[in-house]
Amino acid sequence: MSEARLALSTFRLENALVVTMNDDRAIVRGAVDVVDGRIVAVGTASGPSRGPTIDCGGDVVMPGLVQAHVHLCQTLFRNQAEDRVLLRWLRERIWPLEGAHTPETLAVSAELGIGELLRSGTTCLLDMGTVHHQDAVAETVAASGIRAMIGKAMMDAGEGVPATLLERTTDSLDESLRQARRWHGFDGDRVRYAFAPRFVLSCTAELQREVGRLSALHGYGVHTHASEQVEEVALVERLTGMRNVEYLESLGLCSPRAVFAHCVHVDGGERATLARTGTSVCHCPSSNLKLGSGIADVVRLRASGVNVALGADGAPCNNGLDGMLEARLAHLLQCATNGPGSLPAADALWLATRGGARALGWDSMIGSVEPGKDADLVRVRRGDFRSGSGGDADVYEELVCAGGRDLVRDVWVRGVQLVSAGELTRLDAAALAVRGRAALRDVVERSGVV
Amino acid sequence: MSEARLALSTFRLENALVVTMNDDRAIVRGAVDVVDGRIVAVGTASGPSRGPTIDCGGDVVMPGLVQAHVHLCQTLFRNQAEDRVLLRWLRERIWPLEGAHTPETLAVSAELGIGELLRSGTTCLLDMGTVHHQDAVAETVAASGIRAMIGKAMMDAGEGVPATLLERTTDSLDESLRQARRWHGFDGDRVRYAFAPRFVLSCTAELQREVGRLSALHGYGVHTHASEQVEEVALVERLTGMRNVEYLESLGLCSPRAVFAHCVHVDGGERATLARTGTSVCHCPSSNLKLGSGIADVVRLRASGVNVALGADGAPCNNGLDGMLEARLAHLLQCATNGPGSLPAADALWLATRGGARALGWDSMIGSVEPGKDADLVRVRRGDFRSGSGGDADVYEELVCAGGRDLVRDVWVRGVQLVSAGELTRLDAAALAVRGRAALRDVVERSGVV
Repeated sequence: MSEARLALSTFRLENALVVTMNDDRAIVRGAVDVVDGRIVAVGTASGPSRGPTIDCGGDVVMPGLVQAHVHLCQTLFRNQAEDRVLLRWLRERIWPLEGAHTPETLAVSAELGIGELLRSGTTCLLDMGTVHHQDAVAETVAASGIRAMIGKAMMDAGEGVPATLLERTTDSLDESLRQARRWHGFDGDRVRYAFAPRFVLSCTAELQREVGRLSALHGYGVHTHASEQVEEVALVERLTGMRNVEYLESLGLCSPRAVFAHCVHVDGGERATLARTGTSVCHCPSSNLKLGSGIADVVRLRASGVNVALGADGAPCNNGLDGMLEARLAHLLQCATNGPGSLPAADALWLATRGGARALGWDSMIGSVEPGKDADLVRVRRGDFRSGSGGDADVYEELVCAGGRDLVRDVWVRGVQLVSAGELTRLDAAALAVRGRAALRDVVERSGVV
Repeated sequence: MSEARLALSTFRLENALVVTMNDDRAIVRGAVDVVDGRIVAVGTASGPSRGPTIDCGGDVVMPGLVQAHVHLCQTLFRNQAEDRVLLRWLRERIWPLEGAHTPETLAVSAELGIGELLRSGTTCLLDMGTVHHQDAVAETVAASGIRAMIGKAMMDAGEGVPATLLERTTDSLDESLRQARRWHGFDGDRVRYAFAPRFVLSCTAELQREVGRLSALHGYGVHTHASEQVEEVALVERLTGMRNVEYLESLGLCSPRAVFAHCVHVDGGERATLARTGTSVCHCPSSNLKLGSGIADVVRLRASGVNVALGADGAPCNNGLDGMLEARLAHLLQCATNGPGSLPAADALWLATRGGARALGWDSMIGSVEPGKDADLVRVRRGDFRSGSGGDADVYEELVCAGGRDLVRDVWVRGVQLVSAGELTRLDAAALAVRGRAALRDVVERSGVV
């Protein structure tokens, strides 16, 4: 990959159907003008362009997807941890594998993930890292051009946590702070840092309380898992005497800077706490099905005032990282549990863009195609016979329900083109596949997992 | 499209990872030899090939998917019937739209569907047609080269059925018989006929009883919807005093020739009846979520001895026709409801191939890559970085969970190549998109649906 700090771009997209995802959900035919990586006009172009002009031929231009819960370190383990509930999945497979990573294998895993995310239209992510060598992930993110909030996983306790991952409380905090200072605000705020205490069952109260204090002090994010499975919730309640979210709130972890992944099993009091504190939830529908967790009540969370984002979670519990597929599934699952119309396609796309941007505190910069925001853009092919009517009214259904990653044509982050005609511009996909297979063999051998 | 009866082909695929889906679920590296459209050898090639040889470069070769419940006549209505439960979806949108079809718009709808099915690896389907002009669908199927069991929808009763669809009992039977005689066994058994009484709520007992008698007499299939939604089941029970499947059994509709779509809401007695009579169930996971129907208990159906197939249903309740996506979702939903491991990826692929072949009575001819079966084959690209380990052990996860239609490279039906390098060989996709949009406008205008 080339240099980490990327030159900003000036160009014009013309003849587009712009699905803005602005507050009015305006759909506009026309141009998107980008100057120095920022959107300066949408619809009517602002005079002659200062850069190249791209005719979109009527294709959709929409904001890049934001995924608020992924694990880049796990991409290598795709298809390697099937048919297990959460705690077995972690203890028998994911933790031993993560603990066997080297900086080199971690970098490959992150590249695999970023490549897949970009190619399917995701331009921004919140990553839960692993415990060691996390700089390798951060450096890969920095070099890739993708936008991300990242953080090393923190694990200073817990049954079944292997020695390769268990750390001392002070070491975990010190290393997190070192990385936060290095990466938070990197490259003109393209990279941010979020503390990542893994979940209540792998963290001491002391560590979590200190994370809450430091987040408030420095403005770093907080990223954890909460209330994913019934078994986990019961263990948390036995250990702490509290519901999961109430316990996290008591430690000072609920805030507008915090994202809790999953929240499948939360009660009315917990929803109220999430809403009152401005804590965001990241809904991960494929993962929640795959690991037998259940179906989060997204409609009720939103009705309670909770901001909800979407995420694919890790490749081994999905088994991909396709943000649009998660939006489709979020829509379908709420149709089944709360009834057709309870989360229409347009709302699912909202979660995948604005919900994510807000969860990461980036709502003023990304999540919609509006003047003043950064040019994190996706061009999606229309005109295929799968597109349907070709009309504006059902473009959300076309994108979320009928579409798919194969229709993603071009992707820009802050105006830098990272996917062109479906191909990655800064990663060699074929070479990456080969390196991925070698790295997986390496990690599996070292892990002892069979 | 060119001539309806297709020349059979002789060729050899080499250097393939053959996912046979035979009874042993053997995975074989090597060749697939095809002579006159039939597989003659798998693994080790049988001497010099009599036709061209294609190097698959390590790609997967697998049996074409079989979808045992689709509505080609509805493809045109993709994205046009959102956010409605079943009966509103039918009465407010689908029935008026179907009733406004002409032979010309029907043919376009069928071509759209067949194009999408082929391009995503489906080589065989069971179609529920519409009431009128159904020859237009049959002729399109015949010309396309796809394998299909087809039948005109039968509707001689029912609340909310528009005049454009309601028919007299004898007319419905006579027209069905005429079409059955014309199409059953067409082109060397590439096309078969199934009576398609739509569902209990739109058919008289007299019609259904006669369908059962004629199916037994002539060997035609039976294709209906059953136990899709709670509201429908309650209406059937009020009308007949019986559970849905028990009522269908009392009319003589349960048999090894019958496929019942959905069966989301069946009890233990109904499962036993389905198993005892050899009636197949077609599970349609996306559709069942979309219309708020629920999640069928596939694991329990199979444990009860019921053969289960998969289908995408119609485009307006999905909103696509991607068989692999249905397999992924079937797997994920059973993980959530019956636990991880209850329907592994390999089993989901089994439903999508062997389950479908058996449902349609075609198990001796298709559904697996075995000597003696027809060459209904799909080549799926490997080597993409999304492929993961590249090993044999997790190829099912690679195909079902991590894969996708964008990896489908080539498709053959009875040795005739219908997709080449991702493109349809006998349909012009771009022209089809344009014709589709025009036909939709035409039908919508005539239907009065706004």
